[in-house]
Amino acid sequence: MSHTQLECINCGHLQLDDAINLSCLQCSAPLQVKYTDKESGHPTGIESLTPVHNETEIITLGEGNTPVVHLLKVGDVIGLDNLFAKLEFMNPTGSFKDRGSSMMLTMAKEHGVTNLVEDSSGNAGASVAAYAAKANIKAHIFAPSSTPQPKIEQIKIYGATCHLIEGSRNETTKAAMKFAKTNHIPYLSHSLSPYFIEGNTSFLRELVAQLRGKLPDHIVIPVGNGALLLGIMKSLHDDLNILPKQFLPRIHCVQSENVNPIVRAFKSLTKITDQLSKPTIAGGIAVSEPPRIHQVLCALESTGGQAISVSEDSIVKWHKILPSVEGLDLEPTSAAAVAGVELLVQSGYIKPKDRVLIPITGSGLKHVEI
Amino acid sequence: MSHTQLECINCGHLQLDDAINLSCLQCSAPLQVKYTDKESGHPTGIESLTPVHNETEIITLGEGNTPVVHLLKVGDVIGLDNLFAKLEFMNPTGSFKDRGSSMMLTMAKEHGVTNLVEDSSGNAGASVAAYAAKANIKAHIFAPSSTPQPKIEQIKIYGATCHLIEGSRNETTKAAMKFAKTNHIPYLSHSLSPYFIEGNTSFLRELVAQLRGKLPDHIVIPVGNGALLLGIMKSLHDDLNILPKQFLPRIHCVQSENVNPIVRAFKSLTKITDQLSKPTIAGGIAVSEPPRIHQVLCALESTGGQAISVSEDSIVKWHKILPSVEGLDLEPTSAAAVAGVELLVQSGYIKPKDRVLIPITGSGLKHVEI
Repeated sequence: MSHTQLECINCGHLQLDDAINLSCLQCSAPLQVKYTDKESGHPTGIESLTPVHNETEIITLGEGNTPVVHLLKVGDVIGLDNLFAKLEFMNPTGSFKDRGSSMMLTMAKEHGVTNLVEDSSGNAGASVAAYAAKANIKAHIFAPSSTPQPKIEQIKIYGATCHLIEGSRNETTKAAMKFAKTNHIPYLSHSLSPYFIEGNTSFLRELVAQLRGKLPDHIVIPVGNGALLLGIMKSLHDDLNILPKQFLPRIHCVQSENVNPIVRAFKSLTKITDQLSKPTIAGGIAVSEPPRIHQVLCALESTGGQAISVSEDSIVKWHKILPSVEGLDLEPTSAAAVAGVELLVQSGYIKPKDRVLIPITGSGLKHVEI
Repeated sequence: MSHTQLECINCGHLQLDDAINLSCLQCSAPLQVKYTDKESGHPTGIESLTPVHNETEIITLGEGNTPVVHLLKVGDVIGLDNLFAKLEFMNPTGSFKDRGSSMMLTMAKEHGVTNLVEDSSGNAGASVAAYAAKANIKAHIFAPSSTPQPKIEQIKIYGATCHLIEGSRNETTKAAMKFAKTNHIPYLSHSLSPYFIEGNTSFLRELVAQLRGKLPDHIVIPVGNGALLLGIMKSLHDDLNILPKQFLPRIHCVQSENVNPIVRAFKSLTKITDQLSKPTIAGGIAVSEPPRIHQVLCALESTGGQAISVSEDSIVKWHKILPSVEGLDLEPTSAAAVAGVELLVQSGYIKPKDRVLIPITGSGLKHVEI
């Protein structure tokens, strides 16, 4: 008997492990991994922190264990003594997505998947392509035609077929789903996969060890679909027994002014719709209809975090500053986190003595403009 | 009193720590770090494994601690059960050079350096530029105009001034030295700096821990200047007391047929000269006159290793295969290591049951052809 089940985030329905079906059989909402007692099969809280059944068959490229560095000079500029960055771009394909891909592809392999369809703004596509190569799984990756060329090249170099779609990120998703249905290939969306989020739980576990048990006061995250944010929340939830509640960090969500469905929903301004989005330099968070938006909103609320929009100008500004003062070459999406911290300090949500952590989610090498 | 001195690799002359003067005051040969007794100042073997005097002032971007992965499928193709790769491209600027740059810039900062000149085929230049940014040191990086565009962009993004030179790697070095002399700026060549090599000693120390004390039978390294190879040798030498000699790995050097001064010297074929070199896709090892060539030759001899040339075709072949079968996106220079392993197996120097390790020295993201 498996030590995990999949739980609907909407109606709570429990169903069996399944690497292919990504939604609730009763209400079609997204799922999350629920650890159950290995003996009885009943939910008992946390028995194991990974849904993998055979530890020797993990599909890994050496992801995780990324370093934490102190951003002294950027902290000085913003007015923070303790601004830290966890360098997620130092994952095998250059983004945090590798944590999720490792888990998603391991579970896909466990369930006998031999080919898959995925859609992405680029980073997840490249990551899934790499892990699919390692797992001997044929990958079809759909991406908007506006995806930076290095990311497209990266997807292809791993041997995946890259389907470029004229249109928004949202239209890319629809094209991927249609292709999967027509060709009877499993649609393994990283935005929907409960295993992809589960892979991101390692971020917080590492952080606890790296900061010697003392978590930061704030974690400020650029959010598209929210996989990293939800992975962190899942880990906080599953580890609640060992983490004193008063020391839990506030989780904040940063989006671009041009694509900010979560910020709008957080402020109860408008319904989620693709129509309000404009082009953004932060392609990694250009998701106009995130399927797990309610989970993200709950996460913000339960930790007392904020959802804020930052201007394109401020993203561009920090994207230029970070490499030349801290020696970190990041993609614009990651710069949005710094812009977000600046705004949260200015608006008083973060105090000068607070300990703040941002993830540097993706490598600047993928955004070289030639 | 310092716990280190600098020792001439040719005449053995000992001189004081110096981050700027990179050669022997008596015979002009390159130097290496020698650990001395902290109390008396006399050489006593190993007292500390780093030349840094103030551990709180280390210039770091989180380099090192790269993972080791098992290349099962490539091993199958080549005929090896135990082929492993240490993923050096997962360093902060995407290459193993970050180990050396961290140490070189830390020592430069200790010695009050405020600006520097460096020359490189690209990876070291980008790396030095990043660490110089972190250290508030102004960097002038010289690179051949044939350097891939992503590497040039990377050098610039860290705020360094990039000087592109029409001509060979060797002519680039000459231009850098001339510029440094004319403008009275320290010439901190990574090829000459003893601290750069010292930074690379961490590679082997990590490997010993990762392989639980059991070193591989062979380490096969693409060699340009030989900083990684010499760092590994330095570590083997300094750690000899704790490593049983019979378990020392054989260190092999791989070069392209088109630029192979070490292979030619190893076989005593010809004098070292720039004239015999042709263009190669493996830009990271296109060094026609490596200043530490005799140290490299000694290293090969003392471990029973080989120096071999691989064809451009075999480099291109493995550069294409690695990403699509192992999910690892590497630059052509790194693919030369796999081509080298294949040749060493074919020629019988490596046996099918031997444990073999290669470093994947640089990221494929720096070699995107657009």
